[in-house]
Amino acid sequence: MKLYEYKGAPSPRRIRIFLAEKGVNIATVQVDLGSGENLKPEYLSINPRGLVPTLQLDDGTCIDETMAICRYFEELYPQPPLMGTDARSKAIIESRTRHIEFDGLFAVADAFRNTTPAFANRALPGVTDPVAAIPQLAQRGFAAVDRFFDGLNRYLGGNEYVAGERFSNADIVGLCVVDFARWIKRSIPEQHSHSLRWYQAVSSRPSAKA
Amino acid sequence: MKLYEYKGAPSPRRIRIFLAEKGVNIATVQVDLGSGENLKPEYLSINPRGLVPTLQLDDGTCIDETMAICRYFEELYPQPPLMGTDARSKAIIESRTRHIEFDGLFAVADAFRNTTPAFANRALPGVTDPVAAIPQLAQRGFAAVDRFFDGLNRYLGGNEYVAGERFSNADIVGLCVVDFARWIKRSIPEQHSHSLRWYQAVSSRPSAKA
Repeated sequence: MKLYEYKGAPSPRRIRIFLAEKGVNIATVQVDLGSGENLKPEYLSINPRGLVPTLQLDDGTCIDETMAICRYFEELYPQPPLMGTDARSKAIIESRTRHIEFDGLFAVADAFRNTTPAFANRALPGVTDPVAAIPQLAQRGFAAVDRFFDGLNRYLGGNEYVAGERFSNADIVGLCVVDFARWIKRSIPEQHSHSLRWYQAVSSRPSAKA
Repeated sequence: MKLYEYKGAPSPRRIRIFLAEKGVNIATVQVDLGSGENLKPEYLSINPRGLVPTLQLDDGTCIDETMAICRYFEELYPQPPLMGTDARSKAIIESRTRHIEFDGLFAVADAFRNTTPAFANRALPGVTDPVAAIPQLAQRGFAAVDRFFDGLNRYLGGNEYVAGERFSNADIVGLCVVDFARWIKRSIPEQHSHSLRWYQAVSSRPSAKA
């Protein structure tokens, strides 16, 4: 199998960290988002939505969406578990992962895509039709990022990791979103001691460099 | 356990259909979104994001996010499987479910919340701070809904169901989004014969009335 990804984008990083935590190496192909390679016919035949990452299986099946690709690897390589071990932990990890995606990742993306001049007419990733940036949506995104940081600190006040006492996929997406927020010049507020303690721990793991 | 939900909203319906397909009955509590019961302190103590649905376990743990709640039930009641049976089918179902959520559900929600006068100052669900509607975002949503319908018809040209030859969670979210799109006066285009064939089949299942 083969992973189509891009070193400069936040979502593929989630998979690289996920695999590093499991000690798994797979073949990768870089799709240069900078030059729009993801919107060219060759890549669109692999992923018609023009997004990275995509995992191509040996039978040619292409699976996209970061969570779905992580799920595939979790099934193939169950150790160490990153998506839970029983109904309760699986549900809590998935719930918190989605909070971070919807409240954090999407908010940073809204703020970034709708304020960056290069995306003035391409404000949604992977869509080939022109999509105009919406300055008000960027403002909505910045406000949501503030709420995201508040929520993250609340979670981490109650647990060592985002979804409990064990490192999980929710920490991986959390780390990637906190680092992605630098693109819009936002970082963990200095009074968020729980989040700062956690960030120090997760960003020091060897997988964070993957 | 107890499911906090609301009969008039699209996301809780996903869980009702999911449970009906499994033949499972659980206690439910209606949270009246119409009167803003989801934003009152009593419900915010159960779900600080003010969204429905939330599943409260017997030990008091609250799990929100529709996918996470479905995952919990899939683990507890594996038959019939609705989220796949092996790594490949689990990943494909999750991938297509997310396409429908991001390309369909979120697009309809953007179009609906940003054009409905009652939400002029509450354009994001479950957030207590005022959030102004953005007319341009509604337009972006309508365009995305058209792309969603095109993608749905492509999937259904290749399979009986959205994610293969077997009914799955991807069909449940698909059905709920197609019905949600009526709120913005959009429906499956009449030339989309694959989608129309599928819609007839899935909306005739007894679970669709749950």
